[in-house]
Amino acid sequence: MVYKEGDGLLTEKFDNLVKQLRVLPGVGQKTAQRMALHLLNGKRPQGSALAQALDIAMHGIIECQQCHSFSDDEVCPICLDPRRDDSVLCVVETAADVMAIEQSAGYRGRYFVLGGHLSPLDGINADDLNIDQLVNRVKATPVEELILATSTTVEGQTTAHFISEAVRRHVGKVTRIAQGIPMGGELEYLDSMTLSQALQNRS
Amino acid sequence: MVYKEGDGLLTEKFDNLVKQLRVLPGVGQKTAQRMALHLLNGKRPQGSALAQALDIAMHGIIECQQCHSFSDDEVCPICLDPRRDDSVLCVVETAADVMAIEQSAGYRGRYFVLGGHLSPLDGINADDLNIDQLVNRVKATPVEELILATSTTVEGQTTAHFISEAVRRHVGKVTRIAQGIPMGGELEYLDSMTLSQALQNRS
Ligand SMILES: [Zn+2]
Ligand SMILES: [Zn+2]
Repeated sequence: MVYKEGDGLLTEKFDNLVKQLRVLPGVGQKTAQRMALHLLNGKRPQGSALAQALDIAMHGIIECQQCHSFSDDEVCPICLDPRRDDSVLCVVETAADVMAIEQSAGYRGRYFVLGGHLSPLDGINADDLNIDQLVNRVKATPVEELILATSTTVEGQTTAHFISEAVRRHVGKVTRIAQGIPMGGELEYLDSMTLSQALQNRS
Repeated sequence: MVYKEGDGLLTEKFDNLVKQLRVLPGVGQKTAQRMALHLLNGKRPQGSALAQALDIAMHGIIECQQCHSFSDDEVCPICLDPRRDDSVLCVVETAADVMAIEQSAGYRGRYFVLGGHLSPLDGINADDLNIDQLVNRVKATPVEELILATSTTVEGQTTAHFISEAVRRHVGKVTRIAQGIPMGGELEYLDSMTLSQALQNRS
């Protein structure tokens, strides 16, 4: 099939690459064009390596059966690590939050990923999050301290309160990540130092 | 193989995706992480489509045998288009320049891509560009006007002068894209209006 002139930029394969690159956050038409040209002009092996890494990640990254963070296998590296402290469990909304806290390097306990926050207006109720699994986990495995590290947005606070009630009878104490996080802030946008401090000063 | 904690961000597949995304121009570590999370959280089909588009583009986009621009087939859509004016040939440095001029929508002739500009200090001489092929082309196919649309950098000007001497005997006239392009400017960074005007006002 001849690619009709006037349909796009250069060729069908080029135009499709530009179109697909725009799925990346913050990438508009001009940036996508620049990216496509950059790869085609002398970076083709790297572009092929990116294609392969994308394909493997999109199909191969699953949910850890224990903490519900991202994992390549049934159980993730953090849950498998024998050096982590089993007595402290940090509850976060997303795998991105796990990554943000890990990068702050001040925390050595385990994680639990809720999969979001309560948002009744958007139809996200307790059943849509991993709350039952969290309760079952703290029932099955003793936890001295459960740290609620949900966002400090209204929804994040509501979610923290709801979980606090649900797990209170089953854990030593429930703390809330708090000091140093600006109100309305999402964890993953914080710098490591702020996040590290906020974990230290939990209440 | 267990992915050792402390080696990276989340999982081996995730970390490799972040690493490979950094080949994209303007994408640093934080942006790559955000992109990877964005795709994994609800955009996996689009991420797989991007992987496929990348793979097809990196392996399938070749050089047009006639104009040396990017092409999916032996001859590109612009060279194949019977509606374009064969008597005008616009000589540019790269396929990116073809795209920039096409987007300015003021030009209906053919193109010829040199593959760069002369830069003796970097070891790029006439033999490294498609200059012989250009001379052969204008000898074989009558051209009334050859437009030199190389950059207005020193190297681009030198290249334009060199080509002008090489083709002068074989074409009706040689013109230089000029007015409206800021000195030292690269074509692909110009807005369409400036570029369109510069082509109209060629000298
Ligand atoms: Zn896990
Ligand atoms: Zn062509």
